[in-house]
Amino acid sequence: MENIKEYMQQVGQSARAASRIMAQAETAVKNRALTEIAAQLLNQSASLLLANEQDVAAARASGLDAASVDRLTLTVKTVQGMAEGLLQIAQLPDLIGAITDLNFRPSGIQVGKMRVPLGVIGIIYESRPNVTADAAGLCLKSGNAAILRGGSEAIHSNQAIAACVHAGLKAAGLPETAVQVVATTDRAAVGELITLKDYVDVIVPRGGKSLIARITEEARVPVIKHLDGICHVYIDDEADLLKAIRIADNAKTHRYGVCNAMETLLIAHKVADEVLLPLSRIYIDKGVELRGDAAACARVPSMTLATDEDWRTEYLAPILSVKIVADMDEAIEHIRLYSSQHTDTIVTENYSRALRFLREVDSSSVMVNASTRFADGFEYGLGAEIGISTDKIHARGPVGLEGLTSQKYIVLGSGQIRI
Amino acid sequence: MENIKEYMQQVGQSARAASRIMAQAETAVKNRALTEIAAQLLNQSASLLLANEQDVAAARASGLDAASVDRLTLTVKTVQGMAEGLLQIAQLPDLIGAITDLNFRPSGIQVGKMRVPLGVIGIIYESRPNVTADAAGLCLKSGNAAILRGGSEAIHSNQAIAACVHAGLKAAGLPETAVQVVATTDRAAVGELITLKDYVDVIVPRGGKSLIARITEEARVPVIKHLDGICHVYIDDEADLLKAIRIADNAKTHRYGVCNAMETLLIAHKVADEVLLPLSRIYIDKGVELRGDAAACARVPSMTLATDEDWRTEYLAPILSVKIVADMDEAIEHIRLYSSQHTDTIVTENYSRALRFLREVDSSSVMVNASTRFADGFEYGLGAEIGISTDKIHARGPVGLEGLTSQKYIVLGSGQIRI
Repeated sequence: MENIKEYMQQVGQSARAASRIMAQAETAVKNRALTEIAAQLLNQSASLLLANEQDVAAARASGLDAASVDRLTLTVKTVQGMAEGLLQIAQLPDLIGAITDLNFRPSGIQVGKMRVPLGVIGIIYESRPNVTADAAGLCLKSGNAAILRGGSEAIHSNQAIAACVHAGLKAAGLPETAVQVVATTDRAAVGELITLKDYVDVIVPRGGKSLIARITEEARVPVIKHLDGICHVYIDDEADLLKAIRIADNAKTHRYGVCNAMETLLIAHKVADEVLLPLSRIYIDKGVELRGDAAACARVPSMTLATDEDWRTEYLAPILSVKIVADMDEAIEHIRLYSSQHTDTIVTENYSRALRFLREVDSSSVMVNASTRFADGFEYGLGAEIGISTDKIHARGPVGLEGLTSQKYIVLGSGQIRI
Repeated sequence: MENIKEYMQQVGQSARAASRIMAQAETAVKNRALTEIAAQLLNQSASLLLANEQDVAAARASGLDAASVDRLTLTVKTVQGMAEGLLQIAQLPDLIGAITDLNFRPSGIQVGKMRVPLGVIGIIYESRPNVTADAAGLCLKSGNAAILRGGSEAIHSNQAIAACVHAGLKAAGLPETAVQVVATTDRAAVGELITLKDYVDVIVPRGGKSLIARITEEARVPVIKHLDGICHVYIDDEADLLKAIRIADNAKTHRYGVCNAMETLLIAHKVADEVLLPLSRIYIDKGVELRGDAAACARVPSMTLATDEDWRTEYLAPILSVKIVADMDEAIEHIRLYSSQHTDTIVTENYSRALRFLREVDSSSVMVNASTRFADGFEYGLGAEIGISTDKIHARGPVGLEGLTSQKYIVLGSGQIRI
């Protein structure tokens, strides 16, 4: 492509124009598009898998690591998963146009809020091609236009999925430009996309920490993001220890490579012996490497001493940091210093401490007696999520359809003037 | 001041530390601080006015324009107004800690949202010293810490008000660093403030368009802002013409220098003669200069031809642009092209058009049969406003206490793990 800047301007303009039509699209039309896209994906799965094989072969040839090749690879099952995801999004309620809080004011005007789409969402992601279908579906249902920029290694897969999306939009009578997949693998396109202030309302980056940090640094458009998930479980001295062990086990070992997995376990001194011995056996059996402070190491022979860097690290791996704390205050202070404000849990039966932990821990999800693994759009009932935000502005925590919308004020008058 | 960067880092750190205490402060304590600050302002009004006289004298000597000197000047009445404003904020409900939507999920966990402060709010404003008290009050009530940077011409007034704020905070047992007024007039302090990513959660600039544009361009912290208010009134051919004339008169002439004043009047061709003749007489009587398209000029002899620049201009003055349009579609298209997405009104008795206008006009406030002048935090029932946002992210329209808060997810479990 010769002129990336001009091309991205064109993409932005088309998206802005399409966003106006999408904002007015009726629920049934949006749902029809979602259903048609799902049908297209299933009908075209053979050609999707062929396009994906091209990407996978090229990725292997270029020496991409096995985990990335794995994320890149589509199967009949993942294609079915994409289609099912779209059908689920079709079944979610349409938030757009909803009017709330329409109250009369002393002046006689009636003031309320109407939910509206944000406009144009730019999504930048890495190797998983299924994000193309998920993100398109969420943006479409929430009345937005989308500009999708997937990883260059997935370009054929993404274009093949985009063809299905376009066919579905067309079948429903919606503009194909409502979902555009950036057609160049040139990295300069990302730099353009995140500075298209006139055409893009928000950027959602999905991928590794370095990608997200770079985008946040360079973007001139608001970004909905989370950088990392350094999640904590604090086992209080008034915890139900059976619950505590179940939760601490699950939060670490249910899945290792996810942002809502526990990375640091904090245990109240009083129950350290009772909890740490059975728990460490579970972890060691499951192959989890343990790193702890001196007090924890003294209790578990195979544990190595944690460095300050450990408390700051999102392992995304079978490694766990363990710290013995005097009490909840020390636990909250540790979380304040080291948490990435993603998800933190207390296990306790003490009413006052549960309330204090909920209030005082400043994270996007704060839990009592539940595994951090629940921090997820599906588990929270959002239906689907486009990402998890650890920011405080606009959306915090799992971001579903509502996070892709805004509210404007509406005023119903009967001739009122200001006096 | 020798090292602005170091000083602002120190201010930021202190604000962050204070914000943790403010976030946990009880409603009664925050209200006591507000009441004490109000009492201090009244008790200290003589010294406030003396400090202000110093600023006013310096401003006059430096040749500041009369309007700015006027905004800078405090009187016994404005000091009373500040105190009353704080007492009103004390009476508003405390939103912090409110838990909503606490619903059980199939997994057995109960998921809800808790309202929390944003943390540290940076407010940058120009000559009006009363913003110091208003902004401090709103940030305090919403559990935030504030860093206030007023105009250099108001430095003595702002420091005197800050002394009252600190005395009030101290009397209530809250940290004085919860509200800091930047103690230097060096402009470099603004540049530091808007890039303090670790210590400032949001910047609210209040002032002229160029100030806000510059801050938005250079900030590395989210900004809640509106650049300008190019507000429209569209008089539909099915309007009640008496309402139309009252609203178009009020929206323009009630106050000229405010962001929610009408700058452009759009009139449906069918009713142009009936509406424009009486309205133009009203405007001319009140000294409003009229600029119109050819069709409008043909009807009003004293009207001059509007340029494309006129449709894009926030006059903030007794000047009005007038355009005759074929129908509502043309009006909406004109608004789409020229509105600053602040506030736009339709006057019509037609049900379908009223609903279409509400849905299709993408502004922070959209009205039917009411004056644009109602777009205001007090009129909307927010109690007070820190500004009006024409952005879509986070807060849109008048921003009151809620706009200075966020919501985190809370999960109440009873030992649940993810399976």
